[in-house]
Amino acid sequence: MSDNKLDKWLSGEGLMGTPKKKASLPKKETESRNKSGTGPKTRAEKKKISEQKKSSGGNKRKGGGRGFKRPSFENVKSTNNDPTLHRPTAEKRDKFHPTNFIKANKKPSIRIVPLGGMEQVGMNMMFLEWDDDIVVIDTGLVFPSAEHLGVDALVPDISYLIKNKHKIRGVIYTHGHLDHVGGAPYMLKELGFPPCYATRLTKELLLSQTDEWLDNKKIKVNEITPKSKLQLGNFSIEFFHINHSIPDGVGIVFNTPYGAITHSSDFKFDYNPSDDQPSDLGRLAQIGSKGVVLAMNDSTNALHAGHTPSERVIEDALEEIIKKTEGRIVMATFASNVGRVGKVVEAAERAGRTVYLSGRSMERNIGIARKLNYLKCKDRTLQRMSARAGKEHPSKVMILCTGSQGEELAALTRMAAGVHRDVKLDREDTIIFSSSPIPGNEMAVVSVLNNLAEIGCKVIDNKGYNTHVSGHGNAEDCKLMFGLLNPKYFAPIHGEVYMRHGHRKLIMDNFDFDPKKAFIMKNGQGLVLDSKGIRMMTEREAVRTGDVFVQLGQKAPEKLLSDRRNLAEYGIIMARVDHQKGSVKNVTFRARGFLYMDLNHEIFKLLDNEIRQYWTRNYDPARPENVMEKPLSQICQKLIYQKFRKETIVEVVV
Amino acid sequence: MSDNKLDKWLSGEGLMGTPKKKASLPKKETESRNKSGTGPKTRAEKKKISEQKKSSGGNKRKGGGRGFKRPSFENVKSTNNDPTLHRPTAEKRDKFHPTNFIKANKKPSIRIVPLGGMEQVGMNMMFLEWDDDIVVIDTGLVFPSAEHLGVDALVPDISYLIKNKHKIRGVIYTHGHLDHVGGAPYMLKELGFPPCYATRLTKELLLSQTDEWLDNKKIKVNEITPKSKLQLGNFSIEFFHINHSIPDGVGIVFNTPYGAITHSSDFKFDYNPSDDQPSDLGRLAQIGSKGVVLAMNDSTNALHAGHTPSERVIEDALEEIIKKTEGRIVMATFASNVGRVGKVVEAAERAGRTVYLSGRSMERNIGIARKLNYLKCKDRTLQRMSARAGKEHPSKVMILCTGSQGEELAALTRMAAGVHRDVKLDREDTIIFSSSPIPGNEMAVVSVLNNLAEIGCKVIDNKGYNTHVSGHGNAEDCKLMFGLLNPKYFAPIHGEVYMRHGHRKLIMDNFDFDPKKAFIMKNGQGLVLDSKGIRMMTEREAVRTGDVFVQLGQKAPEKLLSDRRNLAEYGIIMARVDHQKGSVKNVTFRARGFLYMDLNHEIFKLLDNEIRQYWTRNYDPARPENVMEKPLSQICQKLIYQKFRKETIVEVVV
Repeated sequence: MSDNKLDKWLSGEGLMGTPKKKASLPKKETESRNKSGTGPKTRAEKKKISEQKKSSGGNKRKGGGRGFKRPSFENVKSTNNDPTLHRPTAEKRDKFHPTNFIKANKKPSIRIVPLGGMEQVGMNMMFLEWDDDIVVIDTGLVFPSAEHLGVDALVPDISYLIKNKHKIRGVIYTHGHLDHVGGAPYMLKELGFPPCYATRLTKELLLSQTDEWLDNKKIKVNEITPKSKLQLGNFSIEFFHINHSIPDGVGIVFNTPYGAITHSSDFKFDYNPSDDQPSDLGRLAQIGSKGVVLAMNDSTNALHAGHTPSERVIEDALEEIIKKTEGRIVMATFASNVGRVGKVVEAAERAGRTVYLSGRSMERNIGIARKLNYLKCKDRTLQRMSARAGKEHPSKVMILCTGSQGEELAALTRMAAGVHRDVKLDREDTIIFSSSPIPGNEMAVVSVLNNLAEIGCKVIDNKGYNTHVSGHGNAEDCKLMFGLLNPKYFAPIHGEVYMRHGHRKLIMDNFDFDPKKAFIMKNGQGLVLDSKGIRMMTEREAVRTGDVFVQLGQKAPEKLLSDRRNLAEYGIIMARVDHQKGSVKNVTFRARGFLYMDLNHEIFKLLDNEIRQYWTRNYDPARPENVMEKPLSQICQKLIYQKFRKETIVEVVV
Repeated sequence: MSDNKLDKWLSGEGLMGTPKKKASLPKKETESRNKSGTGPKTRAEKKKISEQKKSSGGNKRKGGGRGFKRPSFENVKSTNNDPTLHRPTAEKRDKFHPTNFIKANKKPSIRIVPLGGMEQVGMNMMFLEWDDDIVVIDTGLVFPSAEHLGVDALVPDISYLIKNKHKIRGVIYTHGHLDHVGGAPYMLKELGFPPCYATRLTKELLLSQTDEWLDNKKIKVNEITPKSKLQLGNFSIEFFHINHSIPDGVGIVFNTPYGAITHSSDFKFDYNPSDDQPSDLGRLAQIGSKGVVLAMNDSTNALHAGHTPSERVIEDALEEIIKKTEGRIVMATFASNVGRVGKVVEAAERAGRTVYLSGRSMERNIGIARKLNYLKCKDRTLQRMSARAGKEHPSKVMILCTGSQGEELAALTRMAAGVHRDVKLDREDTIIFSSSPIPGNEMAVVSVLNNLAEIGCKVIDNKGYNTHVSGHGNAEDCKLMFGLLNPKYFAPIHGEVYMRHGHRKLIMDNFDFDPKKAFIMKNGQGLVLDSKGIRMMTEREAVRTGDVFVQLGQKAPEKLLSDRRNLAEYGIIMARVDHQKGSVKNVTFRARGFLYMDLNHEIFKLLDNEIRQYWTRNYDPARPENVMEKPLSQICQKLIYQKFRKETIVEVVV
């Protein structure tokens, strides 16, 4: 395949390619190719076409003529009047797909198995398995939501990988966000510290994550670039640069005997980003023209219409706002947006402001950005948050902080509530939210906005200004990615299930793509690629998966959460049973979080009664007394459920 | 004051009025009035103007001339070139405000005190107090958010009203939504069943709320219309019809010696609603021209630009969708939107569908809508949800249900999850969300969308279609309401603090309104109106307020929630201390929801040790053994906090 293919593709011809077996080209197909605007390739073809033109009755001449006579389009007969002829159909796409012309020497069976990221935004992790070789992509986490009581993070269940860790040839990281690298502290050790592969920035962010919990000397991270080529066991691996809300991201190409398997990472197309290289359209087209058997593309924004705007739009707008603002500036953004925070610091320096950093991740990422030259500024421009931030002249201060999601302990939340040690906000201050609320955080953000409104600060957010843009490609970006890669099979990844279904439908509708070739994978249940093509893994083939709760750097058992949920909703009752010579002397109760805290409430009399009755009927002096505890708990819980339909835990101590 | 005032106001003249004391009109003012387009009123005025025209040098002639000569506007001198002259300023508004011309016979001090609805969307309740007369407006609730563990609802603290219930002359309900009537079951009894006032639909909805918890015979609800006039103690009260997402809503006018106090209720302007009377602009203008001293207006959507679309747009769109859909329809919407659910049932009947109702509130509200003629349909069109809904031909079925917010037990949630007893959804089914997610519910809705995508149903929501519109007025509605009422003082009500600040700013910016006259009330801390004008209540004057948690129809103590929060985050440890002759024999532990469920963990040895040490040092056989329990709990909790920074509850039983 030559690069001409890209031209054809972009010119609207679609997925026809230049098939090697001419004989298989039926007549109709040739017509449609010519109609779609690119010239015929061979002398034989040209001849064929001139013959067809003659036989088709010269449509042009019929409607035309000399002078100003208006051409008539009525009653024109065309041999080509089937409109679908001008579009590649699922059938045609399949017949002439570049992968058909790859000669497979081996015929392995390759499994592609996601462990996370399929049923949520976050916790991204998958692996590819080819005989005795496993390559892992990313080890992400997801932050807990309200129902994950007291938990610090969720990571995927990796018991399959632990069992097969001798097969793991490497872990490849696509970019440095926590939903891709954040699970490393909990997983790398369990996987036996396999070799890791990451670009420069991703590597730094990965190591900064792990050093709190792991012996960082044991982690071997090999630096890669988008031009690197790796051979990990059977897998020959290449990369392509992608844009996202963090620089230095890569997508991955796994070369197989059936064509390439591609992983888009989180991507958008940014033709002129301010903090990164532009998307490499040529490289993607090249990969597509060589033959992609399976493309796995990010779905997060597939349901949003249009193209995602460039990061440059945001950084230009932020520079303008910083320049024009007179009072103190407090800017809250995602520390992970390393490119943007770098540019913002430079803009603040140009405006003569000292930048006070607040938030551990902000300090750490700014440090990395400076080290890797994503940020060039004077030493004195950057200061750790201190009382000086509150004392310096407001026009000379910018506070750059986390807390754009209303996090309880973040600097912005505390400043807004008036309880920050160093800074007291007033009505002359400008607060910039360079962010948008992540679903689930809306009410926390509203609470910060309420406090800022009380103070009277000027609030600038992405509703009225260009202060934030997503790092994920909208529908048009998704279509462009698919069009360039031109895969034979397609699997939308990354995002809620409904987003991935939306992405699948977008591709089916816009590319006449065969629904049978577009797969919605599940966590643990991925795809099998072999000489027959690609199919979903059966439920029996699926690997074990699920959410693992992490608290204080270690796994928390499932039971913990269910206990906490009951305690949270209904509280707990403790009953102490004192007995003497086989009969109950006294039952004393305590209640925490139970609806009736008053121990004189009728329910406690009922429980007392129930316990005594059960005791009388069932006490056996021959058995140890504590065998009574469990059944007593159960009858009490049953009684409460009958009365109130509430599952209050009752612990009985004899 | 005549109704001419409205014409002037609408024509852009603003708040000039027709002052009675002509002498106080300075020359400049007159000029500006004339400039703004309404004709002079008296002969004297006309004369004055003609003199001014002469003296101003005839601008018109200067630039003009015969033929096609281009008029020159350069060097034109105008006595009127101050652009602010054409706008009413805060000062002018004040000077000529209609309330200035009301003669007050009495000079009472009237307090306007919100108890809820100022720091949240929901829980709306306030009262007005004039000597020994109190009139209450609404008794709303707010539904709990994730942090309100196990609680059914929140209502305002009404201890001030309970203490002063002898003064209460009545409770006026503005409309039938739960955030306005829903607190009645918990409050009316405590207030000694004061007389209630409500329009017909509001009355029915109120009574349907209370009958589960109260003896409905004790509740006296007097039916009112927008034309009713009440005298409740000192207060002479009138009403005006408003539009909202429920029919039959009213705003309230309290006539006082200083002018009217108005309460907008939740409102939008709908010129042609499909389920209600249109807004009565004339009546509002009349009230404004008589003199409004204080307007309290709904702020919920004040930060949204433009006008809120008409409910008719939605109902037309829904009718169209119902008509065109072939398979089964499941529509999820707010049962409280009584008008809309009525119209939807009628549309379904026209399309030959039987409507199966699911959700208790849906059944109840549809019943009320039929009773009051908001819905006219055949008996057989309406069915309670049953197995028949799953068996009838899909084209003949519409399921109308609650669950548009992803509520855990709602029919739609269960259908989407495939666990509904009667209906099994498939890919031919169309699901219509006639709603938008309320902040805080986004993730629950996403989970339903995920399940629907798995099944492959067609989902229609308000992102791509006109299936929902807010019942609250956007910025332009807010401006229109303010403009019509033309109040001397202004207090934005209903909404998060930042929304109310936004509403205040909108009015200040668009009406040159004096910031000192626009108040942001707090729950418990309202306004005082007396002969000196209006001022905020001081903190000392504020009445007690706060959130009261309601579970199973009764108040839950504050401690309950704090206990539950600790239990939820950190769990509980129970320790049983067995002792013999003053020395500890044995300590046994149990843990629920605690991070380390394994009782062999080091922490339990430490606790054991700590307990034994304390016991040895402090045991006094003279005192009852259980005095040891509390200090033992405390030292254990302290130890755990030191180790893990977690506030796990430890209960010790000796």
